[in-house]
Amino acid sequence: MARDLPLVITAGEPAGVGPELCNRLAGTPYRDSVVVVGDRRQIDPRLRIVDTPYPAEVEPGRPTPDNAGTLLAGLRRAAEGCLSGEFAAMVTAPLAKSVIAGSGVAFTGHTEYLADVTGAGDPVMMLVAGELRVALASTHLPLREVADYLTPERLGHAIRVLHADLRDRFGIAEPEIVVCGLNPHAGEHGHLGDEEIRFIGPALESLRAEGMNLTGPVPADTAFTPTAGPGDAVLAMYHDQGLPVLKYAGFGHAVNVTLGLPIIRTSVDHGTAFDIAGTGKADPGSLMAAVELAVRMARNQ
Amino acid sequence: MARDLPLVITAGEPAGVGPELCNRLAGTPYRDSVVVVGDRRQIDPRLRIVDTPYPAEVEPGRPTPDNAGTLLAGLRRAAEGCLSGEFAAMVTAPLAKSVIAGSGVAFTGHTEYLADVTGAGDPVMMLVAGELRVALASTHLPLREVADYLTPERLGHAIRVLHADLRDRFGIAEPEIVVCGLNPHAGEHGHLGDEEIRFIGPALESLRAEGMNLTGPVPADTAFTPTAGPGDAVLAMYHDQGLPVLKYAGFGHAVNVTLGLPIIRTSVDHGTAFDIAGTGKADPGSLMAAVELAVRMARNQ
Repeated sequence: MARDLPLVITAGEPAGVGPELCNRLAGTPYRDSVVVVGDRRQIDPRLRIVDTPYPAEVEPGRPTPDNAGTLLAGLRRAAEGCLSGEFAAMVTAPLAKSVIAGSGVAFTGHTEYLADVTGAGDPVMMLVAGELRVALASTHLPLREVADYLTPERLGHAIRVLHADLRDRFGIAEPEIVVCGLNPHAGEHGHLGDEEIRFIGPALESLRAEGMNLTGPVPADTAFTPTAGPGDAVLAMYHDQGLPVLKYAGFGHAVNVTLGLPIIRTSVDHGTAFDIAGTGKADPGSLMAAVELAVRMARNQ
Repeated sequence: MARDLPLVITAGEPAGVGPELCNRLAGTPYRDSVVVVGDRRQIDPRLRIVDTPYPAEVEPGRPTPDNAGTLLAGLRRAAEGCLSGEFAAMVTAPLAKSVIAGSGVAFTGHTEYLADVTGAGDPVMMLVAGELRVALASTHLPLREVADYLTPERLGHAIRVLHADLRDRFGIAEPEIVVCGLNPHAGEHGHLGDEEIRFIGPALESLRAEGMNLTGPVPADTAFTPTAGPGDAVLAMYHDQGLPVLKYAGFGHAVNVTLGLPIIRTSVDHGTAFDIAGTGKADPGSLMAAVELAVRMARNQ
């Protein structure tokens, strides 16, 4: 079953810290249960590999768009291997969106690319640090666009995806989801904004009628405390409402999980770190946590 | 000097948990260094008191607007005592804005009332939990109004007040302030919002030219981690960008401090808790921390 299949790990941008972080796996018990997608010249020979030789010379810290096509082909290869049953799950090391965009390919990020390759609907971003899980109802938007972006449909979609994946991927039979309000104090009975009254509260009510265990809308500053939460996951309405807590609590070992895909995908929560690439200084904590979480999720299949 | 003066503590809404929390001080070493403003019938006789007898009967959990005038007079008495040199600092137990508003008095909160009584300009709200300090550039606004509320002038004012009070009230000679961006990833070079480029960055630049040690604008999800912060204080652009971390880190012992007043004022970070008033179940952690911080701040005078 899924637990016997290897994980696939994409080494990411070859001029970043991804390949050296993957190589740290060679000295761990995960060595024999992973397959790395990357350039054989960069990857520890003790690791199994899907070789994707880069056409342009790789110099740490100095990325070139000439390697972007090969990088994306490797991502696609990994995702297709998960769909076909070759791999149990995929873990992605970081790439740099701007480098790929510089090659002329329209690319907005790992998550969107994988949704496209796997034919999924809108995925939901969740960060995990130990037992703390924070999902987002909106992600990379200017703050002034957040309130208009959120609609009953989008909120309902995010909660349904989160609920289904907590149950199916995380093995939580009846997940408790704590949902933040949009406004400070969750609007304080309409004195500080009316979205909670207009549609967040009613959306939760109708999902509860389907049997979901939802708390909220609660003020974001109590959602993470024993007063209201954090339940099995907190759903924040936007990026900076939820991720500062997660990154504070899970500094160095936070993992990004994409929910709503037909495959399991976890990711490091950091970037390519071009400034330290090749020096061996990069902290493997997030990659190790991403591998560990992917293994646990695969066992729930 | 200031260190020999007593603190004054306002017991707050008489039907809430404030009076019973104040009474917990009677069994602590603070007993002889505080004066409580409240109704003698509610306050432990071992504590010194400024008696403000309430005209209407007090029933825990059932507040009445008939006592609001007396409550506000007590607040004024405490603030004036700080201004006149009778008290070193003031600590406020919670009141309920809606109860006071119900009496027909225009009242938007402790902070605004104290700014008015003391003739101060716009105060700045800061929450403190141990060594973590989070100040806010905007406070109780609907999320959709935040981006337009922030201006170079308001941001500059908040940073100046924060810098001055960290130096003068907290005894930090050269405070390092970590300033968040408004948008996720601090706008990511303009891709996710342009306020960082338009005015946050330039405002910080001109304040640095005056000698302030400012880091930022940084992404809010790195501001609280060793990657970028948290320095001596983090300035969040809005309520839910900063307070979820603070309340998570300081659950049960967070303190609210009002900066920019001519007096020292700290406060509990919780409300009147009418549901448990009179039961003795209220946790005195925040009040104790508020007293302790007021004492430390007074010693820096």
